[in-house]
Amino acid sequence: MAKEKVNVGLIGFGTIGTGVVRLFKDSAALINRKAGIKVELKKICDIDVERDRGVEIDKALLTNDADEVLNDPEIDIVIELIGGYKHALDFVMRAMENKKSIVTANKAMISRYWESLEESASKNDVDIMAEASVAGGIPILRSTDKGLAANKIDRIMAILNGTANYILTRMSKAQISFDEALKEAQQKGFAEADPTLDIEGFDSMHKIVILSTIAFHRRVREEEVYVEGIRDVEYMDIQFARQFGYVMKLLAIAEKNDGELNVRVHPTFLGNRHLLTSVDYEYNAVAVRGDAVGDTLFYGKGAGEMPTASAVMSDVIFLARNIVSGKEKNPYSSKKNEELRIKEIGDIESKYYMRFTVADKAGVLSEISGALGKYNISIESMIQKGRNAKESVPVVIMCYESREEDVKKALEEIDKLDITRKKTVVYRVID
Amino acid sequence: MAKEKVNVGLIGFGTIGTGVVRLFKDSAALINRKAGIKVELKKICDIDVERDRGVEIDKALLTNDADEVLNDPEIDIVIELIGGYKHALDFVMRAMENKKSIVTANKAMISRYWESLEESASKNDVDIMAEASVAGGIPILRSTDKGLAANKIDRIMAILNGTANYILTRMSKAQISFDEALKEAQQKGFAEADPTLDIEGFDSMHKIVILSTIAFHRRVREEEVYVEGIRDVEYMDIQFARQFGYVMKLLAIAEKNDGELNVRVHPTFLGNRHLLTSVDYEYNAVAVRGDAVGDTLFYGKGAGEMPTASAVMSDVIFLARNIVSGKEKNPYSSKKNEELRIKEIGDIESKYYMRFTVADKAGVLSEISGALGKYNISIESMIQKGRNAKESVPVVIMCYESREEDVKKALEEIDKLDITRKKTVVYRVID
Repeated sequence: MAKEKVNVGLIGFGTIGTGVVRLFKDSAALINRKAGIKVELKKICDIDVERDRGVEIDKALLTNDADEVLNDPEIDIVIELIGGYKHALDFVMRAMENKKSIVTANKAMISRYWESLEESASKNDVDIMAEASVAGGIPILRSTDKGLAANKIDRIMAILNGTANYILTRMSKAQISFDEALKEAQQKGFAEADPTLDIEGFDSMHKIVILSTIAFHRRVREEEVYVEGIRDVEYMDIQFARQFGYVMKLLAIAEKNDGELNVRVHPTFLGNRHLLTSVDYEYNAVAVRGDAVGDTLFYGKGAGEMPTASAVMSDVIFLARNIVSGKEKNPYSSKKNEELRIKEIGDIESKYYMRFTVADKAGVLSEISGALGKYNISIESMIQKGRNAKESVPVVIMCYESREEDVKKALEEIDKLDITRKKTVVYRVID
Repeated sequence: MAKEKVNVGLIGFGTIGTGVVRLFKDSAALINRKAGIKVELKKICDIDVERDRGVEIDKALLTNDADEVLNDPEIDIVIELIGGYKHALDFVMRAMENKKSIVTANKAMISRYWESLEESASKNDVDIMAEASVAGGIPILRSTDKGLAANKIDRIMAILNGTANYILTRMSKAQISFDEALKEAQQKGFAEADPTLDIEGFDSMHKIVILSTIAFHRRVREEEVYVEGIRDVEYMDIQFARQFGYVMKLLAIAEKNDGELNVRVHPTFLGNRHLLTSVDYEYNAVAVRGDAVGDTLFYGKGAGEMPTASAVMSDVIFLARNIVSGKEKNPYSSKKNEELRIKEIGDIESKYYMRFTVADKAGVLSEISGALGKYNISIESMIQKGRNAKESVPVVIMCYESREEDVKKALEEIDKLDITRKKTVVYRVID
């Protein structure tokens, strides 16, 4: 008997959940046409079923009992939008055991529990899709996996966290401190009350884990990713780097080289002409380089109610089509692994920005350049500001491509010198 | 009996065909893994089977008889890369009648014969895919149709022709004439010996026909698209516009407004901060705006052997997967039409750049502004250069949003004035 409609259950009626409900209401005709079948929202589960979300719904759809979604035999697809690990993982696993396919925006869950999720999906012959988990509304998982399917990808470079990007953009444009920019971002709804995941780089890490696992056909694990956040970024460095023509971005990078993969998240000074440099405020962008296609860039809003709901719904439509017209299996997988060793952060090569805080006296530069030279680090340019200042002066050096381990050792030596007044600040630089 | 492999026949062994053959050779493992089945190139058809394309192939694959591809019952997918209308259409139709699915890069054919192709595909229960036909390696059809599936799209703005973009970029950066830039583009292989399709805007027209048909769920026909090329662009105007902060691009635009769709291709002065302004040389980019996702941008190489082959092969992989695992029907269609009237070019509103060539005497500006004012066209800024020149001087005016029909009428009047020495040059402007 031909199916007449596809039923969807939603767990998590927060910001993105509200966006999803809005799309079901406002774009029903479009969604049904694209899916080739009527797609209906049958149940909405949340702890809070009272709060007015500003979207009109039939009260009968609401429940605070997840079982009403998980155990409803008529529900084909469960959208999980509660986030985090604990309940989310339990709900998703139980939904799959009940033969429901999953759409989720939960990057933390996928990043950590991919194998278990995949195993359950395979065992129960259902799909789990997560376009919304990386770069919000940008269809980047689909594009990487399908659109660039014939490419050996060798590099992904991305701005994946709108909060961090908003803060860095404001620091740079408004010439304000990290704390001021964070406060502003919180007031405007671009940062959460507890911004740890965003500003410490963990959210970007979850996303690059997912994206690089798909792009490189190798399960990348969280502990294999080097992560450095932006909490300690000082406006002073943004200002100095601007004089060399650089802008700071929190980048997530996955690079393949000679059978080795390096995956990392860190604040980076990007050259003025780099594609990602003009990606400002809450926007995200992903630059993917493939052997056939060359450089590509995908740009759009990385978060927010409607952009993320757009991605969630694209997965719902995909699954609904497959329920109707046969079955294309889960479009991406952590399996089919290539033998790719992880390259440690110490082994990467990069240009570096260094700010030394040193005594204001003759001979300082010679000591610094001596220590750098000892580790084969060549200076490209230098700025020495505010001579005759009180106690100490900043000396800023941009150096040519060097091995990270060498830079680390050189700076350890320099930080122990008598002339050094504060720990040296260092950032990676990409032209 | 489970199928053991999918066989592919290639018709057209030119530049892109060579790229496709290269991918079959160099990326076989990747392609088979992605497709979930062995995908084999079984026949290559071209008029010229002798020429060395720099890629090693088994001579037994080569034929100059298309029937050997079209009538081979073992071939599942035919890649058509000969371009143009005549033979291509015939081959594709016959292949479909023989139950073969099609992958093509032939924008001219799809743009003109979409309904017939679609009808035959449906009748024969096969698919026809054309990711490579728009924006080369950028997976824009897939992204628009699937990635942004839940969006009501209201605007597409795109740089879709690498030749035209290369010429305009070189004119601007090297301060050279159109003819010089074209010659250079031809020498570097970015323009063909007969560049008509590219520089007159017809290639962009074919592409925006395809893209807007998919995005707006309405078959857009070639004759409904306003087309203006770049052959008459003078360096002088690029230079003047730069002083106002604008850069010239050949844009393809599809805009939906109040139930009306306007589709057009024309040279445009774009503001410095516009997303498309920094898309230079042979690169393409497509900005898509959806109600849920907001602004997105997709960027990459729009032409060339490997980028285009990358798109062709993504379709081959998609079709091969479907042959194995069931059937998701053709991802995009010209049917399911919305009732969208076409808005004529005269009814659009835009800012305009105008260069008048007038007698060098007092009162000229008053005559011009009088005629503009009569049609409710307000001047935003003005440059009057080279006073006391010989016969005539250029007067450049940027005006606020006006209706195109009014602009046309005003310029017709101005061009008849005694003070006017040459036909006025006019370009649309987007901030």
